[in-house]
Amino acid sequence: MTDSGMKLYTYFRSSAAWRVRIALVWKGLLHSAIPVHLLKDGGQQRAADYLAVNPQGLVPTLVDGDLTLSQSLAICEYLEEKYPQAPLLPSDLAERARARAMALTIAADIHPLNNLRVLQYLKGPLAQEQSAVDAWIAHWIAAGFAAIEAQLEQMDSQQYCVAGQLSLADLCLVPQVFNARRFKVDMTPYPRIVSIDAHLMSLPAFADTQPVRQSDAE
Amino acid sequence: MTDSGMKLYTYFRSSAAWRVRIALVWKGLLHSAIPVHLLKDGGQQRAADYLAVNPQGLVPTLVDGDLTLSQSLAICEYLEEKYPQAPLLPSDLAERARARAMALTIAADIHPLNNLRVLQYLKGPLAQEQSAVDAWIAHWIAAGFAAIEAQLEQMDSQQYCVAGQLSLADLCLVPQVFNARRFKVDMTPYPRIVSIDAHLMSLPAFADTQPVRQSDAE
Repeated sequence: MTDSGMKLYTYFRSSAAWRVRIALVWKGLLHSAIPVHLLKDGGQQRAADYLAVNPQGLVPTLVDGDLTLSQSLAICEYLEEKYPQAPLLPSDLAERARARAMALTIAADIHPLNNLRVLQYLKGPLAQEQSAVDAWIAHWIAAGFAAIEAQLEQMDSQQYCVAGQLSLADLCLVPQVFNARRFKVDMTPYPRIVSIDAHLMSLPAFADTQPVRQSDAE
Repeated sequence: MTDSGMKLYTYFRSSAAWRVRIALVWKGLLHSAIPVHLLKDGGQQRAADYLAVNPQGLVPTLVDGDLTLSQSLAICEYLEEKYPQAPLLPSDLAERARARAMALTIAADIHPLNNLRVLQYLKGPLAQEQSAVDAWIAHWIAAGFAAIEAQLEQMDSQQYCVAGQLSLADLCLVPQVFNARRFKVDMTPYPRIVSIDAHLMSLPAFADTQPVRQSDAE
């Protein structure tokens, strides 16, 4: 591992932060982690000092010298361009596109709907019971996972989502599967996802970066 | 314009499809448009023939020869790599990252929350009144636009969002501003966004691809 001098604002349970943790370890880039607790103190991500770093008040944020960067996928693309070793995307144009599309199916169409701030809005302003919130979570995970399972089947993917190699799709899949299990979503309709997740979790870049192994884990 | 032989499944009012329409015109790539009506016939995006093309049942989908591709930002990155003329990203690594991050702030953290299927879920299973749905829409647009306005101010952006040139951030901004106005969101807190949007809408790639100019417009 090379000490990159980078800082990552992270929260152990944030799946967006987990994606970036995987990318950094995969590329062998040592960095310092700065925990931001999303529940303590009314949410440390809403404190003025963090909003100065990340005006959206979301984790993760990566700081690399003068550059302060939000959005996990933008951070991963930046790491990929700056440190091309141990790639996060295949070299073939069509495969790169497939990997990015699958990553976005999770990062744009599942995860943001089930993010903490959205669940807080459902329970607060919309006064929904926990059972309705659980159904909401399960609904969007099922919609996204069904599409991904169909695509994995079509591509006959085995150990990785796309092109038989690690990609942004894998970085998004594993944290989303973790969330699905945390919310007790039935995974039996998604055998390819389950099997790819199991393989990826056998790799140190995924295992060592999981929530329970973080310094701020509870 | 070069006839690229590509086909785009689109819906005139879809802001994700609009992003891709801008990219194609910006790069001078002629293509054929296949309209998918999101409301007619219970939603043509849910028909078996469309699900075979796009298992998520969302627009847009781009077909380029053997490659069938979903997710607007993955499609734009593909077009950028295959047809580098008239770039959609700056060349500087930090500026590329900023442009992608701002694009994702819209494409992951605003738009998916206000997408048709989500609004249908709020009205259906969650039995919300139109006023609560309108408040939901306005809430997520305001959260995202406030962060973007702060970033544009920080970068002193004038005609384009990032680095004084067109980028993925602009492709996402204009359709999102269109949506915000359609939902009557107050734009006065966002003078930079309003002024950049006005400049972009003066360019043919944005003006000619807007919903009202599409063959399937109503």
